[in-house]
Amino acid sequence: MNAEILCVGTELLHGDIVNTNAQYISKKLAEIAIDVHYQSVVGDNPGRIKKCLGVAFSRADIVICTGGLGPTQDDITKEVLAEYFNTEMVYDEESYQHVKKMYSHFRKDFPKNNMRQAYFPKGSVILDNPNGTANACIMKGDIEGKTQIGILLPGPPKEMGPLMDNEVVPYLKQFSNQVVYGEKLVVVNIGESAAEEMILDLVKKQTNPTIAPYASAGKVIFRITAKAESKDKCIEMIDPVKEELIKRFGRNNAYVTETGKVEDRTAELLLEKNITIAVAESLTGGLVASRLVSYPGISKVLKEGFVTYSNEAKMNTLHVNRDTLAEYGAVSEETAKEMAYGAAQTAGTDIGVSTTGIAGPDGGTEEKPVGLFYACVY
Amino acid sequence: MNAEILCVGTELLHGDIVNTNAQYISKKLAEIAIDVHYQSVVGDNPGRIKKCLGVAFSRADIVICTGGLGPTQDDITKEVLAEYFNTEMVYDEESYQHVKKMYSHFRKDFPKNNMRQAYFPKGSVILDNPNGTANACIMKGDIEGKTQIGILLPGPPKEMGPLMDNEVVPYLKQFSNQVVYGEKLVVVNIGESAAEEMILDLVKKQTNPTIAPYASAGKVIFRITAKAESKDKCIEMIDPVKEELIKRFGRNNAYVTETGKVEDRTAELLLEKNITIAVAESLTGGLVASRLVSYPGISKVLKEGFVTYSNEAKMNTLHVNRDTLAEYGAVSEETAKEMAYGAAQTAGTDIGVSTTGIAGPDGGTEEKPVGLFYACVY
Repeated sequence: MNAEILCVGTELLHGDIVNTNAQYISKKLAEIAIDVHYQSVVGDNPGRIKKCLGVAFSRADIVICTGGLGPTQDDITKEVLAEYFNTEMVYDEESYQHVKKMYSHFRKDFPKNNMRQAYFPKGSVILDNPNGTANACIMKGDIEGKTQIGILLPGPPKEMGPLMDNEVVPYLKQFSNQVVYGEKLVVVNIGESAAEEMILDLVKKQTNPTIAPYASAGKVIFRITAKAESKDKCIEMIDPVKEELIKRFGRNNAYVTETGKVEDRTAELLLEKNITIAVAESLTGGLVASRLVSYPGISKVLKEGFVTYSNEAKMNTLHVNRDTLAEYGAVSEETAKEMAYGAAQTAGTDIGVSTTGIAGPDGGTEEKPVGLFYACVY
Repeated sequence: MNAEILCVGTELLHGDIVNTNAQYISKKLAEIAIDVHYQSVVGDNPGRIKKCLGVAFSRADIVICTGGLGPTQDDITKEVLAEYFNTEMVYDEESYQHVKKMYSHFRKDFPKNNMRQAYFPKGSVILDNPNGTANACIMKGDIEGKTQIGILLPGPPKEMGPLMDNEVVPYLKQFSNQVVYGEKLVVVNIGESAAEEMILDLVKKQTNPTIAPYASAGKVIFRITAKAESKDKCIEMIDPVKEELIKRFGRNNAYVTETGKVEDRTAELLLEKNITIAVAESLTGGLVASRLVSYPGISKVLKEGFVTYSNEAKMNTLHVNRDTLAEYGAVSEETAKEMAYGAAQTAGTDIGVSTTGIAGPDGGTEEKPVGLFYACVY
């Protein structure tokens, strides 16, 4: 069985929001070895949604839709699915009670257009949505002799995610007896095509696990993906391939983290070697600290962060020398050094890291243009 | 003329990355009043890319593709476009020199598979990519008596974005004599359907500007969008509608910012009223400061931020009382209050804001579960 993801929402076509739902669902399906060959996005337009459903079902067995289950006039995905499966919309008492109960958290009176959320395509399995008014549903039927499954999920990610995890993935597992597991090898210091050339023989030879490259800012990532009956079996298949790649690129140029993110690798190394760290940020204003913070357990080594925008903050909190700021300016090698040193001293950590620069759009000069940036590790 | 966006890349189908390119291009096309009815994503598979191009051209005049212009074996978008337009791939000397020059930044020897980046569909206009090796192209031709335009852009966002802004948008403007301009009205304290009911008559009556609702975490956003010959004319049309909506929701429940983001509104108000602020973060680890920092000019009021993870940092930097931490713990109303006060005192600002909580996945107890969160504005 393979699947297509169809996200409904004019706000996606206007570019008002980014389509995180498609990514989330794709990832979950990949983990249970259900191939996704296409993702589509369409606006809140019944004719076009129907056309897209038709195209999707012509090339996929399972179509997972998000969005358009809300109470407003342009939420029409359920109606279109019912039409596609040639069935009618029926009232579901439990969903009515659900909408009413969820809605009572917000307001006392119950707007009558919310009633629409209690109707579902006849014959569908209704999925209880604990995080919003819109219940989801799974519709299975035969269209022109082919079994097809349509799954409708609400659009808001915090409602869609738990329904995908707790209802849809367990349901879809019956159609797959394999799992897919991948690891990302991050390669630094080598360009994409040069890196690929170094392992082209392996890329061509490997079918399971596969090795696929993709470029990312400042690094190249190779995804090594195996398909087998269990995750353990996948890991067993991936390990020798991974070792071979690391050998070819050199241990200093290649590393593995679950996410492929450089901050996770940094956090990993800090924890592994038990090096305590403090961060002093001017330009990045807390971004460096917040990236590190996203790594579980980091509080063991990340002791403190300072967002020192003003010269006063740099002097008072980090003890940057007034003369340094006067002579070289806040954006300078000298200030970056004193910031890093001051962060480590103030927080009592092994190392201090600092950033200072000119972010723009204004504030640049000929001597110090927008984009000038100093970082220091003390 | 209307357009479809077709993003090529197996990493999108695996959910390894989120499709920011589709959002970016959609937004740019919306601004020049070129409608986008569909977005699609397909993997690095020649047969499926060709099928998707066919579907896209059957329902759109302009198809903008991203991805698949790289040097590796699975980068095949150009070849597929040439096939679709029934033309051959031809060598472009300038692109060859371009690839060679760009590549020399990374390494001395020139990998021969990069040669593929010097070939383009015959008859296409080649667009110089200043940020990467892969030049882009625009192909215009007649297919079955209909003029069709295929535009191929590189996948990495930092290469795609400038090409879209500097080459594609100016080129496409010839097909549109209108601009579309929208403003977002953020409504708080009112649920989506209740908010829509309050203005349903306007939503139904309005055709230009249109009013479209969409839900977002903790708030409802209405997008008011006008189409006219100039941005000024659009604003003139939007203003009375906006005023009417704000009147209905109440001034304290509705506000307009360019981005619809609550942090931008916060920054706007701080700057407008010249209130200086310091932020002390435990749980959020710099996220609050970094959100504020993204607003240009915020340094006038945001004086300092503190990421105080450890109790030592809370005591030494923010002067939180040792007894408070011992009696109530780091995650408590009392500590949040002292953190906010300490931040304002240390930084010498009008107000201090603090966050403390239990992020999980570990560290929760029955009394203080994962998710418990205190914030204080002093």
